[in-house]
Amino acid sequence: MKIQAVKGTRDFYPQEMRLRNWIMDAWRRVSIRNGFEEYDGPIFEYLDLFAAKSGPEIASQLFNFTDRGGRNLAIRPEITPTLARMVNAKINSLPRPIKWFSMPRLCRAENPQKGRLREFFQWNIDVIGENSVLADAECIYVCVDAMRELGLTKDDVQIRIGSRAVTTEFLKLIGVPDEKLDSILPVLDKRAKVPDEAFVEMAKNAGLDDKQIKHICEFQDLPAADAVKEYMIQHALVTGGGVVPGVGELQQLEEILAVFGIRDYWAIDFKVVRGLAYYTGIVYEVFDKGQSMRALAGGGRYDNLLEVLGGPKVGACGFGMGDVVLGIMLEEKGKIPKDLIEQRLDFFVINPDSARPKDGQDSNQVANNAIAGGRRVIEMVTQLRSRGVATDFDYSCFGMPLGKQLKEANRRGAAKAVIIQPDGQTVSIKDLSTGSQKDGVPIKDFLENPGRAS
Amino acid sequence: MKIQAVKGTRDFYPQEMRLRNWIMDAWRRVSIRNGFEEYDGPIFEYLDLFAAKSGPEIASQLFNFTDRGGRNLAIRPEITPTLARMVNAKINSLPRPIKWFSMPRLCRAENPQKGRLREFFQWNIDVIGENSVLADAECIYVCVDAMRELGLTKDDVQIRIGSRAVTTEFLKLIGVPDEKLDSILPVLDKRAKVPDEAFVEMAKNAGLDDKQIKHICEFQDLPAADAVKEYMIQHALVTGGGVVPGVGELQQLEEILAVFGIRDYWAIDFKVVRGLAYYTGIVYEVFDKGQSMRALAGGGRYDNLLEVLGGPKVGACGFGMGDVVLGIMLEEKGKIPKDLIEQRLDFFVINPDSARPKDGQDSNQVANNAIAGGRRVIEMVTQLRSRGVATDFDYSCFGMPLGKQLKEANRRGAAKAVIIQPDGQTVSIKDLSTGSQKDGVPIKDFLENPGRAS
Repeated sequence: MKIQAVKGTRDFYPQEMRLRNWIMDAWRRVSIRNGFEEYDGPIFEYLDLFAAKSGPEIASQLFNFTDRGGRNLAIRPEITPTLARMVNAKINSLPRPIKWFSMPRLCRAENPQKGRLREFFQWNIDVIGENSVLADAECIYVCVDAMRELGLTKDDVQIRIGSRAVTTEFLKLIGVPDEKLDSILPVLDKRAKVPDEAFVEMAKNAGLDDKQIKHICEFQDLPAADAVKEYMIQHALVTGGGVVPGVGELQQLEEILAVFGIRDYWAIDFKVVRGLAYYTGIVYEVFDKGQSMRALAGGGRYDNLLEVLGGPKVGACGFGMGDVVLGIMLEEKGKIPKDLIEQRLDFFVINPDSARPKDGQDSNQVANNAIAGGRRVIEMVTQLRSRGVATDFDYSCFGMPLGKQLKEANRRGAAKAVIIQPDGQTVSIKDLSTGSQKDGVPIKDFLENPGRAS
Repeated sequence: MKIQAVKGTRDFYPQEMRLRNWIMDAWRRVSIRNGFEEYDGPIFEYLDLFAAKSGPEIASQLFNFTDRGGRNLAIRPEITPTLARMVNAKINSLPRPIKWFSMPRLCRAENPQKGRLREFFQWNIDVIGENSVLADAECIYVCVDAMRELGLTKDDVQIRIGSRAVTTEFLKLIGVPDEKLDSILPVLDKRAKVPDEAFVEMAKNAGLDDKQIKHICEFQDLPAADAVKEYMIQHALVTGGGVVPGVGELQQLEEILAVFGIRDYWAIDFKVVRGLAYYTGIVYEVFDKGQSMRALAGGGRYDNLLEVLGGPKVGACGFGMGDVVLGIMLEEKGKIPKDLIEQRLDFFVINPDSARPKDGQDSNQVANNAIAGGRRVIEMVTQLRSRGVATDFDYSCFGMPLGKQLKEANRRGAAKAVIIQPDGQTVSIKDLSTGSQKDGVPIKDFLENPGRAS
């Protein structure tokens, strides 16, 4: 019987796996150089953990199941609840700030489409136990650092930064009652994602009147923190002397990001609100500048989550970046190194003694020579591997002609072929990219410093 | 609400994560230097894929669930079915032999106990499309290579090698009918795992008579391939001229393993049969020599699996090694490097300008100096990180006393502290392990070659 992979999942053949490793190695390298430590949790948790964070309706968006003990479990659709659970469990012994990263495999019960799969990897960067906007700024810096590491420039991507605090305050000032905020914020998040008429329709359905909607549109189009205060004074929403919560923090963020030297990578955009209820402060999304609606990453401050999950109130912020949209974008923009396509071996060891006798040769003698040569190949292979260099050989080397072994060496992407001469004392080293060959190299000398291809 | 992790799963805090990465990096390094390429599949598959390989009873041993489309899915309990599915899907375009490895996360609906969890990682090495015993030998070599890479010697571990072919032939020769072989092989696999009386009981229940059981015990205690033939002649099971299937292959394996230079790491042991039905040839298990019943890894030849899953009949062999028993053993034997415990940073950048004015200082001036110093810290941090060195700083560096920042640098495992002098031109570099300090280093010189800690 022939069984397929499940729709929305991926098979990582070696070529796809090298791409995945290339992306994940970059994520890890960037995380570590920015002072973050790696963690991970289980692939499944109690369903309640996800429901506690996102409400019971989350159950339909993830894969849940019951174990033999009747426990309701679910494959993780995100790692933040696990992170909060883990930190809460050791809250008294973990020195803060906690700077952690993870690259979890996540699953969501989506309808698969381009850029959206049912299984993916997501890089997560989080700072827990720090209320300062410096932590938000550093997370944004780390995000830019990763973009650059993967070859993406300010012409490719932009981080658009909003503020839940400012947006919430603005909504209050234009008369939105507190109890409606949670349902209206996700509507504002749709502003840039749907046509204008659709947005107005959604806003009206959420209970906003025409004047409020006009205010919101004008507010969401403001270009910087400074402009918010001006707008509010201009429309008599606040007086000149008043402090608008969140605005000062956003101004501070702008200043610190300049010190971090990433001025070209971001812009203030109050259309970025983020859909999830749990954000409390600065929020941001990374967009592909070519296709502005495509988000590569998103995050923000979530100061209440640990408390919601049974811990203390502790400041926290961070972001997540998935591998699917990122991979599509890197591919489209030609940022994936060409040499990722092929396996790379340092050496391919070859026995030049074919088992096929030529005219006049004694066939037993030829066969014995071929076997002795094959044994020398294996011995050399183990010597090289034990020195840490990637080495292989042909399983048919006990008698296959030299030419066929060389062909296999090329197919396998070996940098050099090592042909063990029948004297058992010397090797010929053939550079497979240039074709140049060095003969008569004593085996002892060669093994002393075989060198690496990469 | 406070929610726990599910029993039988693990939280990988940074310390545990470093150990997991240390093990998995070794697996990957060994795989690549032995010429294997990495692959991976989805964490869930159609339940039928696992049932096709292992029978419908597998459903109770794994976590299965139904998606919204009513599909019966399961979290993978092993990766071999996925491997076979992937290879079958591209069987005509993949050059053989296929030498692949993977380090999948796997889940089984076990009752958790020491060394056996519901979620674990398993290194898999497989060679597909090669019938020669050379492939079996190479897999065994790779297994030894990994043991040595992790610091385990011939005094710690031993690979015990059996042969399904020889064992099956022996059972036939002592009169076991073909249709009973599948149910009797798993009984033989229990021989070393249960007391003698229990084994005899199981064997009788499986339909073996006393004479057959005696034969089996004597056979299973034979020390090498040679001895099998002798035993068979001695007991008139075969004649002197006859060929016993599997024996020649096992002798060949013994010879090739000697050429691979790992003579001290293995022994023939016909008590190793492997429980699973799908093995067809040479089989082996890696045991902890200290606790001989504890298996670290196991594998063998499985020439029929691709065909069972809808592909052609293609020779295949390989092994799997889990991370749980391995981790326990490495810990017990003190093989885990001590410096894995701590985070390692190359540099921790420090602002020596505290915001607290001393007697007679102008407090505004002091505050401004502290802020300027903090900005210099961030600028230096970004310079160092962009050079790929792991660097961090204290979020409170805009004013916290030098001593507290140094303390934090030590806690974070930084190799060196970089104290930016108020002149803005020079730094002091303090080696945090020796305490020695070099003052007045021009920033330009320092950044030209900051060096790494590790």
